[in-house]
Amino acid sequence: MLLNADLGESYGAWTMGMDAQLMPLLDQANIACGGHAGDPLTMHRTLELAKSAGVQVGAHPSYPDLQGFGRRSMQLAADELEAQILFQISALDGLAQCAGHPLSYVKPHGALYNDMMASAEIRASVMRAVAHYHQPLKLMLLATAEQEMHRIEAESYGLELLFEAFADRAYTDEGKLVSRSRAHAIHPEEKALEQALLLAQDKVVITESGRRLAVHADTLCVHGDNPAALALVQRIREAFNT
Amino acid sequence: MLLNADLGESYGAWTMGMDAQLMPLLDQANIACGGHAGDPLTMHRTLELAKSAGVQVGAHPSYPDLQGFGRRSMQLAADELEAQILFQISALDGLAQCAGHPLSYVKPHGALYNDMMASAEIRASVMRAVAHYHQPLKLMLLATAEQEMHRIEAESYGLELLFEAFADRAYTDEGKLVSRSRAHAIHPEEKALEQALLLAQDKVVITESGRRLAVHADTLCVHGDNPAALALVQRIREAFNT
Amino acid sequence: MLLNADLGESYGAWTMGMDAQLMPLLDQANIACGGHAGDPLTMHRTLELAKSAGVQVGAHPSYPDLQGFGRRSMQLAADELEAQILFQISALDGLAQCAGHPLSYVKPHGALYNDMMASAEIRASVMRAVAHYHQPLKLMLLATAEQEMHRIEAESYGLELLFEAFADRAYTDEGKLVSRSRAHAIHPEEKALEQALLLAQDKVVITESGRRLAVHADTLCVHGDNPAALALVQRIREAFNT
Amino acid sequence: MLLNADLGESYGAWTMGMDAQLMPLLDQANIACGGHAGDPLTMHRTLELAKSAGVQVGAHPSYPDLQGFGRRSMQLAADELEAQILFQISALDGLAQCAGHPLSYVKPHGALYNDMMASAEIRASVMRAVAHYHQPLKLMLLATAEQEMHRIEAESYGLELLFEAFADRAYTDEGKLVSRSRAHAIHPEEKALEQALLLAQDKVVITESGRRLAVHADTLCVHGDNPAALALVQRIREAFNT
Repeated sequence: MLLNADLGESYGAWTMGMDAQLMPLLDQANIACGGHAGDPLTMHRTLELAKSAGVQVGAHPSYPDLQGFGRRSMQLAADELEAQILFQISALDGLAQCAGHPLSYVKPHGALYNDMMASAEIRASVMRAVAHYHQPLKLMLLATAEQEMHRIEAESYGLELLFEAFADRAYTDEGKLVSRSRAHAIHPEEKALEQALLLAQDKVVITESGRRLAVHADTLCVHGDNPAALALVQRIREAFNT
Repeated sequence: MLLNADLGESYGAWTMGMDAQLMPLLDQANIACGGHAGDPLTMHRTLELAKSAGVQVGAHPSYPDLQGFGRRSMQLAADELEAQILFQISALDGLAQCAGHPLSYVKPHGALYNDMMASAEIRASVMRAVAHYHQPLKLMLLATAEQEMHRIEAESYGLELLFEAFADRAYTDEGKLVSRSRAHAIHPEEKALEQALLLAQDKVVITESGRRLAVHADTLCVHGDNPAALALVQRIREAFNT
Repeated sequence: MLLNADLGESYGAWTMGMDAQLMPLLDQANIACGGHAGDPLTMHRTLELAKSAGVQVGAHPSYPDLQGFGRRSMQLAADELEAQILFQISALDGLAQCAGHPLSYVKPHGALYNDMMASAEIRASVMRAVAHYHQPLKLMLLATAEQEMHRIEAESYGLELLFEAFADRAYTDEGKLVSRSRAHAIHPEEKALEQALLLAQDKVVITESGRRLAVHADTLCVHGDNPAALALVQRIREAFNT
Repeated sequence: MLLNADLGESYGAWTMGMDAQLMPLLDQANIACGGHAGDPLTMHRTLELAKSAGVQVGAHPSYPDLQGFGRRSMQLAADELEAQILFQISALDGLAQCAGHPLSYVKPHGALYNDMMASAEIRASVMRAVAHYHQPLKLMLLATAEQEMHRIEAESYGLELLFEAFADRAYTDEGKLVSRSRAHAIHPEEKALEQALLLAQDKVVITESGRRLAVHADTLCVHGDNPAALALVQRIREAFNT
C-alpha cells in the first residue's frame, strides 16, 4: 500500500501545506498544475522536492478556478475539458522532464475528482484526455464498489488505473465516503491509523454501520495541511514500514 | 528566407487573427501558450491547423498578462521568469506532441520580446529557460547589428538561434526598428513587398535615411490580422516562390 | 417597449460587438463588469459611450470565468455568489458614478442568467445581492409564465423587476425560449421584426406551434455582434419610432 | 499618530495575515481589492471586521497581478492604470457602502506604491484616479523629505494627503527607507518600539548613520503577518494609549 498526498498547492505569496515535512513520508505526490493552485515556480520547486525525496509525481489537474481552489463544479464542454486537462498535465510534465523526474500518473482535483466519480460523461473526458497524452500515464480513482466497471471503461481507452482509499474518512455500506457535512465523516487520529492498517493488511474498512467492506486500493490518500495531519502520516508511515 | 507569424491569439469567445487563411502561407507559426492569449482549446486547434498545413510550430511565451495581451513590461525575478517561460513552452509542447507535431523553436512575445532585445539580463533568463527545456528548441531573436554578440551569448548556453526581420517596419541606420510612434514606422504594402525581397535576395534593408544596411535574417515576420495584411503575405509568398 | 443589448464585452486587445454603432439605437445598455468580459478601461469607455448617447446603463454580472465568457455554470456557495455579484455591480457603478451616469438596473449574464431563471436558489442569491446594494437597482429577468411568482419573490426583497423578451428567439407554448440546439430556435430577420412589433403592440408572441401567447415585457433584448444583427436593430428602432 | 496595516490579503482558500487579532489594534485598515489579493467574500468579511472594530477603511489597490501579489512593477499606460485603480476602489467602496462603512482613503500596494513614490508620472496617475473618484478620498503616501512637493502636487488635483511612516524600517539620512536587501533594514522589536514612540512624540527618526531626522507622519504602518509582528503592534498600541 502506497501513500499519496496533494502538494504544491501554494500560489505566489500564499503558502499552503507543509510540503517539505510531508514529502519524505510519501510514495506519490499529486502536484497542482496551475488550475486550482501552483504557479510555475511552485511547480518547479515541488518537483525538485519530490525528486530529491525519491517520490513519484503525478499531475493534479483541476477545473480552471484559482479563486475557488478547484472546489466548484464548472460545466465545461467535453472538448474544452479535455484540452484543459491536457494543458495542465503538459505544463507540469514539461517542468518535470526538465527536472529529470517525469510524471507517472494523473489524479484529478477537487470538484473535478468528485464529478469524475459521479458522472460517466466527465469520467470519459478525463480518461480520453489522460489516454491521449503522448506519454503513458496512469489515472488515479477512488476505490469503490464500481471498481471493475471503471477498470473496463479504462481498458477501452488503453488506460491503466490506480485506486486510492482514505485513512481518515468514514465509509458508507455502499463503499462511498460519508459526506463531510456529517458529524462522523472524519475519523480521529487513532481510528484513522486503524483504518489505514486494515486497508493495507486486510483490504477492508469498517463502515459507518459496523460492517466489514472489501476495498481494494493501491494507495492511501493522506494530508499534510497541519501538524496534527502530519503526525498521523508519520504514524501510518512507521506502521507500514514495520 | 522563411515566413513566420503569430497565431493562436484568440481566447475563449474572443477571436483574433485570420489564422485559417494565414497558416497555409507560412513556414513557421508562433503559437500563443496561455500567457497573453491562447486558451487550451485554441492552442490545440492551432496546432492541428499547423500540422495539416505542414507548418513548423514554435512557442510564443509572454509575461503572464491576458488583460494587457503581454504588451506591458513586468518585473519578474529571474527564477520566476524562467519558470514562467518553461511552463508556457511545456504546456504548448505537450499539446503539440499529443498532436504528433512537436515544437521546434521559441519566440518570446510582445513586451518580453522587446525586453529581451534591450536587456542582457532578461535575454539571459530567456536563453537559460529555452536551453533548460528537455527537448532542443531554437530561440528566435530580432536580427540586429548585435547579432554576433547574441550568437556568442547563446552558444554559452548551448543554444541555437534563429534571426528574424520585418517586411513592413522601417529600420534605423543602427539596424533597429523605427518606433511605432513615428509616422514612417510602418511601410505601405508596395514598400513592404520591396523590403521583403531585398531582405531575402540581397540580405539588406534601405534604412530611414536611405542607406543600405546588411541584415542577415533566417525568417521574415509577417501579420495576418486583417485582409490587407493577409494580401501582403500572399504577395510575399508568391514572390518568394518564383 | 424599450430596447436593451449587451455591450462592453471586449477585453484588453480583444474586441467584441459593434458598440459604437449599436449604442445610439438602444434605451438600455447591459455593461460587462469584469466577470466574463470588460477590463476597467473598456468599462469606462462603454459608460462614456452610453452617457453621450443618453442610454440607461445596467450591470451585467457573470460567474467569474473570462476563459468561458460566463457561459459555463459554476457552483458557487450562496455567500460567494452574492459577494461576487455585489463586487461586479460595485466596480461598474463606481466607474459609472465617476462618469456622472449611475446604474439603474442589473441583468445577469450567460450561465448565471440561465441558472437564475431555472433555479429558485440561484434566483434568491441574485435577488438578495441586488436588493442589498446600497443604491436601488432594478433586476432584469426573462418574461415567462412565472412572471407573477418572480414579482412576488422580488417583493419579499423589496426589489423591483424589469421583464425582457426576445425578438429573434422562437418561444415554446409554455413561454420558454426554444433551445438554441433546435433548427428553428433563431428567427430570420423578417420574422424577428414581426415578433418585435407583436411584443410591443399586442404583448404576444406566436409560439413554435402557432399559438398566440401573452408575454408582458418592458424591454426587448437585441444584439449587435455583426452587421446583420445591427441592421435588424435599426429596423426595430425605426418601427418603434413610427 | 494613527496605526494602519494591510488586511484582507487572503484569496479563496489561501489565508494570509492575522486579521481578526490585528484589526482591534488599528485605526486604519488598508483592504485589498482584488488586484493583488482579496476575493469578493474576503473583501466583504474584512469590511465587516473593520466596521465592528470601528476601524477606518481604505482601498489598497494594486497592479493587477495575483500571481505576483502586486510586488512586480507593470508598465500600464496612464489611462489603463487610472481605470484599474478606479475599478478597484469602486469594487471595495461599493461593498463598503453595502456594509454601511464607506472608505475614507486610498493607499496603493506594493510595486504600485513604490513606483508612485519614485515616479512623478505614476504618482500623477494615482492622484488623478483618486481625485476623479465620485466620493472624496484621501491618498496615503510615504512621509519623505519631498512631502511638501507631494502636497503641492495633490492640491493641483484638489486631493488631500495622509503621510505614513514605518516603525520597523531603518531610514537613510535622506529620509528614505533602507533597502530590504541590507542587513539593518528591519529593526528588532525594541528598536521598532522606540522608533514608533519617537515618530509619535518628537516627529523624528534616528537614521542609519545616527542623525535625528524630522519625519511628519499622520499614521504609522504596522504588520500582523505573524505572532511576533502582532506582539509589536500590541506594545505600540499600549504605548500610544498611555
